[in-house]
Amino acid sequence: MPSPNRLEEFALIQRIAKRFGGLQNHTIVGIGDDCAVTQPNSKNLQLITTDLLVEDVHFNRRFTNSRDIGYKAMVANLSDIAAMGGVPRQFLASIAIPPSFSRNDVDALYEGMMELGKTAGVALIGGDTSTAKKLLLSLTLIGEVKPSHVVQRTGLRVGDAIFVTGTLGDSNAGLRILQTPPRKHVPLACRTWLSQRHLRPTARLNAGQRLAKCKIATAMIDLSDGLSGDLAHICELNAVGATINITHLPISDALHTYAHHLDKPAYEIALQGGEDYELLFTTRPESLSRIKRWNTHGLLDASHIGTITPKQQGLQMITPTGLTRPIRIQSYEHFRS
Amino acid sequence: MPSPNRLEEFALIQRIAKRFGGLQNHTIVGIGDDCAVTQPNSKNLQLITTDLLVEDVHFNRRFTNSRDIGYKAMVANLSDIAAMGGVPRQFLASIAIPPSFSRNDVDALYEGMMELGKTAGVALIGGDTSTAKKLLLSLTLIGEVKPSHVVQRTGLRVGDAIFVTGTLGDSNAGLRILQTPPRKHVPLACRTWLSQRHLRPTARLNAGQRLAKCKIATAMIDLSDGLSGDLAHICELNAVGATINITHLPISDALHTYAHHLDKPAYEIALQGGEDYELLFTTRPESLSRIKRWNTHGLLDASHIGTITPKQQGLQMITPTGLTRPIRIQSYEHFRS
Repeated sequence: MPSPNRLEEFALIQRIAKRFGGLQNHTIVGIGDDCAVTQPNSKNLQLITTDLLVEDVHFNRRFTNSRDIGYKAMVANLSDIAAMGGVPRQFLASIAIPPSFSRNDVDALYEGMMELGKTAGVALIGGDTSTAKKLLLSLTLIGEVKPSHVVQRTGLRVGDAIFVTGTLGDSNAGLRILQTPPRKHVPLACRTWLSQRHLRPTARLNAGQRLAKCKIATAMIDLSDGLSGDLAHICELNAVGATINITHLPISDALHTYAHHLDKPAYEIALQGGEDYELLFTTRPESLSRIKRWNTHGLLDASHIGTITPKQQGLQMITPTGLTRPIRIQSYEHFRS
Repeated sequence: MPSPNRLEEFALIQRIAKRFGGLQNHTIVGIGDDCAVTQPNSKNLQLITTDLLVEDVHFNRRFTNSRDIGYKAMVANLSDIAAMGGVPRQFLASIAIPPSFSRNDVDALYEGMMELGKTAGVALIGGDTSTAKKLLLSLTLIGEVKPSHVVQRTGLRVGDAIFVTGTLGDSNAGLRILQTPPRKHVPLACRTWLSQRHLRPTARLNAGQRLAKCKIATAMIDLSDGLSGDLAHICELNAVGATINITHLPISDALHTYAHHLDKPAYEIALQGGEDYELLFTTRPESLSRIKRWNTHGLLDASHIGTITPKQQGLQMITPTGLTRPIRIQSYEHFRS
């Protein structure tokens, strides 16, 4: 007889395959063979990204349920495809589960992935399972993009305008709220909204595809480490500097309220950010009016926050009082701090 | 300033990209952007497999060095591509490393992957890094295969001959030797050879490709869980039974010697196996002479070990004394036992 562990693993894979593993998106063989088999679209390039999420590093099960963990793992991967202007197609999900993890927990994890996965049109085609002391997810997502549409992290020039989608710092604030006992003087609606922005961020697939299709973005990156960290990274890659106008940072009403109660400038939280999963992109100045038009018509939600400068100027910000100051780079450290 | 952890992560990724991440195999963008970008061969199907290796579940750092861990992670993935008859192309490697893991350990891990990866012609195109209490590797390997060459786990018929490549049970014996203090009465050469078969098994890419190309294999699977477990699995998938002739199991001289000293029949270890990474395949009876010819000319090393039977006959073995007995299924449990 196979040992219970192994039997359970086979049963688990069969259950997952049956519930979540339908063939679609040019998938010829899905879960259950040595490999998945796909027929890539020959006209397009293929995009591949992978993200590792580790308990107590990337998420805390004390305030994150299994469904939300699965959901966010999918966001992290979709966001990478968005940042290249691509369309997601298939994914593989490997999980290492602790003994305390129930069958319901496993199902909830996959339900969370598939809740978003279905909306985004991705098919589960494979993965692996193991035991471990702490929960761990490793997702690999495959997408495609027309060769002329690929947007990389490099390609920007001095003088390019810097944009970000959505609002920044909400996820960081949401994490703080989840980590520490709720503050009585922060309204419930504000706490809930910020927490949800941390637990269920949005992958900006439509925005990424629109920018790629119209060839407007000269470079693009998704903001997972936070604005200051990711901006520093893209500037280093391109050997340029950047100046950010603090008053132009998109900040939600909820973050304003929360920051006010913390007695801290909201822009500091927005600059640090972390797990925003918004897109940062650059454009040539001549594209400004087009982006403005898209914003007006609700086709994009992007804020013009600054300009690419020569490298020797480094990373600077123009403060609300009009002063120019260096940006303090604070990368997001999940639960490490 | 970014915190040291994050700085170290960027530095680590840059070092890995520089040392191991050269562009090849239709890779357009490798490590360092949001996604890797590839141009799949439009005439072929794509194969994708992923394997998770967790410390103290799949390997023990007490007797496995980092280089060997990396090497074996690559074998586990290449072996899946081999079992579909494919050619490996690119891979992504995600690692979660414990605080005790040094820079040299990380380098050794990638050196182990690339030592075999270079021989197999695969390019490192991406991955992710994190910290964790225990070392964990998650590899995703992409390969390709001609549409007419794909060999799946299904497709066999009653009457098909069952073959395995190489010898079975060596890795299982090697693990036992590594786990327990060396037995004085087992010769050193035998102990070393078996241990190496556990630490550095062979992925049978050439055999898999040959069988696929000549359309001789009606079904194929790689033996990672052990002969009895994987045979049971493939029989269940195809709703058939199987009879194995014990005297035909390929057993190395070293395993014979070791089993003799254990006072245990060698075939028991070969049947249980685990992490053999040999291929089990089935063929129509009319292909027997061709396989025999290949074996004679050194083009294949495969043993005819049994026959596919109707489902109601279940899994049986013919013992060395000519008796028919049910096979006891013992799947491989790594370090769980």
